[in-house]
Amino acid sequence: MSLISEINEQPKRLESLLSAQRKTVDKIAQAIRTRDIEYVFLAARGTSDNAGRYANYLWGALNQLPIALATPSLFTYYQKPPRLRNALVMGISQSGQSPDIVSVLEEGKRQNCLTLAITNEPNSPLAKTADFVLDIQTGPELAVAATKTYTAELMAIAMLSVAMSGDKAQWKVLGKVAGWAKEVLKQNERIEQFAQRYRYMRQCVVLGRGYNYSTAFEWALKLKELTYVEAEPYSSADFQHGPIAMIENSFPVMAVAPEGRVFETMKRALAHLRNDFGAELVVVSNNKDALALAQTPLSIPKEIPEWLTPLVSIIPAQLFAYHLTLAKGFDSEKPRSIRKVTETK
Amino acid sequence: MSLISEINEQPKRLESLLSAQRKTVDKIAQAIRTRDIEYVFLAARGTSDNAGRYANYLWGALNQLPIALATPSLFTYYQKPPRLRNALVMGISQSGQSPDIVSVLEEGKRQNCLTLAITNEPNSPLAKTADFVLDIQTGPELAVAATKTYTAELMAIAMLSVAMSGDKAQWKVLGKVAGWAKEVLKQNERIEQFAQRYRYMRQCVVLGRGYNYSTAFEWALKLKELTYVEAEPYSSADFQHGPIAMIENSFPVMAVAPEGRVFETMKRALAHLRNDFGAELVVVSNNKDALALAQTPLSIPKEIPEWLTPLVSIIPAQLFAYHLTLAKGFDSEKPRSIRKVTETK
Repeated sequence: MSLISEINEQPKRLESLLSAQRKTVDKIAQAIRTRDIEYVFLAARGTSDNAGRYANYLWGALNQLPIALATPSLFTYYQKPPRLRNALVMGISQSGQSPDIVSVLEEGKRQNCLTLAITNEPNSPLAKTADFVLDIQTGPELAVAATKTYTAELMAIAMLSVAMSGDKAQWKVLGKVAGWAKEVLKQNERIEQFAQRYRYMRQCVVLGRGYNYSTAFEWALKLKELTYVEAEPYSSADFQHGPIAMIENSFPVMAVAPEGRVFETMKRALAHLRNDFGAELVVVSNNKDALALAQTPLSIPKEIPEWLTPLVSIIPAQLFAYHLTLAKGFDSEKPRSIRKVTETK
Repeated sequence: MSLISEINEQPKRLESLLSAQRKTVDKIAQAIRTRDIEYVFLAARGTSDNAGRYANYLWGALNQLPIALATPSLFTYYQKPPRLRNALVMGISQSGQSPDIVSVLEEGKRQNCLTLAITNEPNSPLAKTADFVLDIQTGPELAVAATKTYTAELMAIAMLSVAMSGDKAQWKVLGKVAGWAKEVLKQNERIEQFAQRYRYMRQCVVLGRGYNYSTAFEWALKLKELTYVEAEPYSSADFQHGPIAMIENSFPVMAVAPEGRVFETMKRALAHLRNDFGAELVVVSNNKDALALAQTPLSIPKEIPEWLTPLVSIIPAQLFAYHLTLAKGFDSEKPRSIRKVTETK
């Protein structure tokens, strides 16, 4: 039963990460300022790549830092790495083992860039390569499907954002995240009941936008890994550029739509899907109108500021994926065909 | 019948683009050199975004230029655009109409960046905003599903790569693309027969890597838009980080696997899927071993250099999607729920 216990550990892990790593984070932010970084060059795969999507929006909106996603095969197969002038070269990896991610950081070093590893393994090859290591210190993650390392990676990214911005008041807001996470976990039984309805679901789409584009990807990944549902993530904008054609009556759409700057456009998209297409909606939100549009409403606390919603909104989605796994009669601890560390090149 | 005629127009359009725009492309490459560009900041959606994926690999491998994908909602909703020092800010859009893509270029201008529009509409808002316009001049595209504008965008990107590299011998190689495209179009009837087998396919995945990561995304998009199949694109590396768990016996996997640097890893992945998972394979390749692994082999000419394979390998995929649309009894000219110009913000 390690998956559900790791999901439940999250508030505690987020709290201790925040207090233990603040000094390291301040040091890293200082180094970024000193080096006059122009953009971030980011390497990550799987769940950590989804954490990178959060960094893409958060650091873009709050720190004005553009992020270029590394295409690791340029480093491993094509052997012609890009020029990385004035870039912060960053790798995110739970295990710190993936050779392709390590090779991106090695190249960053070769080109004299500032390098940063965000990892759960401070003795891993990735950590050993980097100038700075931000240890997300969640303790061993035994379940194959990553949960607590994902929210810890998001917290690490949010801490770095606050430290780079120099807005010290925001540290206090970060301190509230663990409490919100605890609040959401109380819905466990309700979500178990909700999940039954999707026992025979074979495919779905997952929509999110802005900060929660990351949540849509991570929710879809958990559904694929654990429940074998073909769940495809989209920004609600891209979805309208073609894929919306797939939607038929009763097609299931998962959506992450907390209040904030992209809320109105998300709500319009959901109303359109429900009213004009007869879609089935599973909605994570803290807005009652958005929740009222859903057959399955998953609520999160009202007061979370938009930039921190991804740290909380993924939790009901994790519980949903977990309970759907059990409802479908699958093994939540041993998803077929995948291993914890995937050594892609 | 505009879709099939636009697919068939591609050789002619590629040829005329290459000869008509070479001077403009040289001028743009000159401007990029003069401005000492450190990275590209790219805005695009839908099919044009898939063309951007090609630029990401091609310009990375051949021109050492990193590419950061713009997150347009940072410009339209969050209103805190990133700092864009030393970036080439580039928009790719068939229509040149999407307000979010235009707003990224406007911001680039405001920050004194070099701006470039790749578009089929030289009088569009996007073109009017940019310092340089590369007109892909395919003539009006009437079918809702984009085909000839996609290959023209890829050609524009390949031309820019050659011009930036200064390797003049490569212009001659570009001149061969139209002939290869013509070669592939001859398989039309064979592909029509192949498509029948997938009449009742509801979902599939589409795999590609490196340069043809773009092809996987574009093939999946055509399947979704035209045939309503839930087709999810992956790099074969990311696929092994979780989603492979979805694969069951006879699950259909489309793959783009021409010879080149990533061929061996793609071939291993395909053999694994076929032999260990019993997957159904539809493979675009110019290698006989890869084609032999497939129930449905779609061949392309042997001699295409890897960096140009995306311009050719999408064509059998377009024909496959077109004939599957007819086999399923759908209207190839009027896919449900989508319009030619999607004005997302």
